[in-house]
Amino acid sequence: MKGAVLYGPRDVRFEERDAPTIAASTDAVVRLSATCVCGSDLWPYRGIQATPEPTPMGHEYCGIVEEVGSAVRTVRPGQFVIGSFFASDNTCPNCQNGYQTSCQHREFVLGAQAPLLRVPLADGTLVATPEVPPDDLIPDLLAVSDVLGTGWFAADAANVKPGGTVAVVGDGAVGLLGILAAKQMGAARIIGMSRHETRQKLAREFGATDIVAERGDEGVERIKELTKGIGADSVLECVGTQESMMQAIHCTRKGGWLGYVGVPHGVELEGEELFFAHVHLHGGPAPVRRFLPKLIDLVLTGKIHPGKVFDLTLPLDQVAEGYRAMDERRAIKALLRP
Amino acid sequence: MKGAVLYGPRDVRFEERDAPTIAASTDAVVRLSATCVCGSDLWPYRGIQATPEPTPMGHEYCGIVEEVGSAVRTVRPGQFVIGSFFASDNTCPNCQNGYQTSCQHREFVLGAQAPLLRVPLADGTLVATPEVPPDDLIPDLLAVSDVLGTGWFAADAANVKPGGTVAVVGDGAVGLLGILAAKQMGAARIIGMSRHETRQKLAREFGATDIVAERGDEGVERIKELTKGIGADSVLECVGTQESMMQAIHCTRKGGWLGYVGVPHGVELEGEELFFAHVHLHGGPAPVRRFLPKLIDLVLTGKIHPGKVFDLTLPLDQVAEGYRAMDERRAIKALLRP
Repeated sequence: MKGAVLYGPRDVRFEERDAPTIAASTDAVVRLSATCVCGSDLWPYRGIQATPEPTPMGHEYCGIVEEVGSAVRTVRPGQFVIGSFFASDNTCPNCQNGYQTSCQHREFVLGAQAPLLRVPLADGTLVATPEVPPDDLIPDLLAVSDVLGTGWFAADAANVKPGGTVAVVGDGAVGLLGILAAKQMGAARIIGMSRHETRQKLAREFGATDIVAERGDEGVERIKELTKGIGADSVLECVGTQESMMQAIHCTRKGGWLGYVGVPHGVELEGEELFFAHVHLHGGPAPVRRFLPKLIDLVLTGKIHPGKVFDLTLPLDQVAEGYRAMDERRAIKALLRP
Repeated sequence: MKGAVLYGPRDVRFEERDAPTIAASTDAVVRLSATCVCGSDLWPYRGIQATPEPTPMGHEYCGIVEEVGSAVRTVRPGQFVIGSFFASDNTCPNCQNGYQTSCQHREFVLGAQAPLLRVPLADGTLVATPEVPPDDLIPDLLAVSDVLGTGWFAADAANVKPGGTVAVVGDGAVGLLGILAAKQMGAARIIGMSRHETRQKLAREFGATDIVAERGDEGVERIKELTKGIGADSVLECVGTQESMMQAIHCTRKGGWLGYVGVPHGVELEGEELFFAHVHLHGGPAPVRRFLPKLIDLVLTGKIHPGKVFDLTLPLDQVAEGYRAMDERRAIKALLRP
């Protein structure tokens, strides 16, 4: 089969790779209905994160189970399944506490930008839908695998409550779906921070009540103007830079909650500043597995349409163009069809 | 009157100062029944924090109201009152959210190591007891003013719950009273981290079920052994150094809560490490005012005896010896009687 392999900065190749097989009795092999390019794939693509050796790319996936190992009990060939970027056993104490991305046996799922994918710990990782869903739901279900699950965790970590005020830093797919999550959780005021017209439009569609185009100190001032001078109850940080993190901290009211899911690159938090900021801070790799059943249900019942973040659909063999379009911000998120 | 003034490293003088008077209509002047030396006073005393000019010291206090400004409504001369280190109006949005130490009109209370103290924003800052309490309760009530309130906030910020496991980093008065707070909140297992026998003893008296004498990585390993290999649900950081903060983060289970109240000195948190630690982080200057009514009630009804942290009582004119004894760790905390 052919799949995407990153060789170095801006060098994604669609090339022949060994098709995955069952390596452990707890594995499943899934034939992917769709996959996509993640904002976090852009870190190594841009060379901000090193690529020491050619690396199969992709960690967002849904599709039909092709084969399972002898120990797999909860999914079977023919079922449509969704998983996320860390495989987890879903039984260890960390999983039981709802932190499956810190599973004691976690394995990063790699190589999903391909027709077939090996998923370790299939019982703890994959969730099957009751039936094979219609094709038009595939983008929504694929979004659940990572971007929606991550935006949802940001809102959950930021303690979004009915009636609360929310600000979202970052207008990528995760930030936009953080807005959708906040709306589902009943927030009264949701402020999207974005300078891009198409993203502002989608933000409003997902539930943003206000848009702030300013950044940094100016952006913080605008948020305060919209929140009685004190900042938002809940702030979602969906970027991962020093600037976005500080912007998020300063947008949060004293005693408010900051949920951060942007993978930090070069972020340093000064202890004394954080101390006097008086915020609650929580985040990390989103334990998407915790939210999968609920989010799949919201999609299957037509309550949410997170797949709208895919504003570019390409055949898988054009994966390199998907990276380029996202890198140049021509696309919010590229869906790939094997 | 005479009070304590810090001139520079290890140079505390007990010298003549102007007696405080009502400067604003919202002020009160309080004749102190007792005051004390704070762990945070040791930062400038040790020269770790600069003292650019001679500074009146002390911010923990209780006593009898001597005089009030014309706008003060809720306390009157003759009443016994307790306040804390930040004066607050208790009406601004931050106060209403329970973060009185981030009050929009906050003022630091300074100069409490003296017989008389001016307290700004008296209505929002001071809480009066129903009657003037007996003398033997003074140490307990004085502890409420800062160390107990701060230890309590650490436990509150660390989300201590009935049945939970708790680890406390720091065996100063705040850490010890964090143990007392965790016990009151119903924690099932409370692990005090201390190498000092007298402090270990007090930790057990306050409710510690286990003592870990090791520090750093070794200490973390011991905590994990006591918590099914995953770390504690709730960790209280009561020191404020890089080492103690990292020790606290590593002692917290994935998805657990870390409450930090040690004023950070030279602490830097690396974003990526924090991200993968998966902890909830909250702390800052303890909003003691939020807890004062409850804590005063626990003392007056004899349910807690936080004043046990005062293992040295001195007349106020020996304040310099109080600093020396705490600096050399001969005393946990020095109470001063004007």
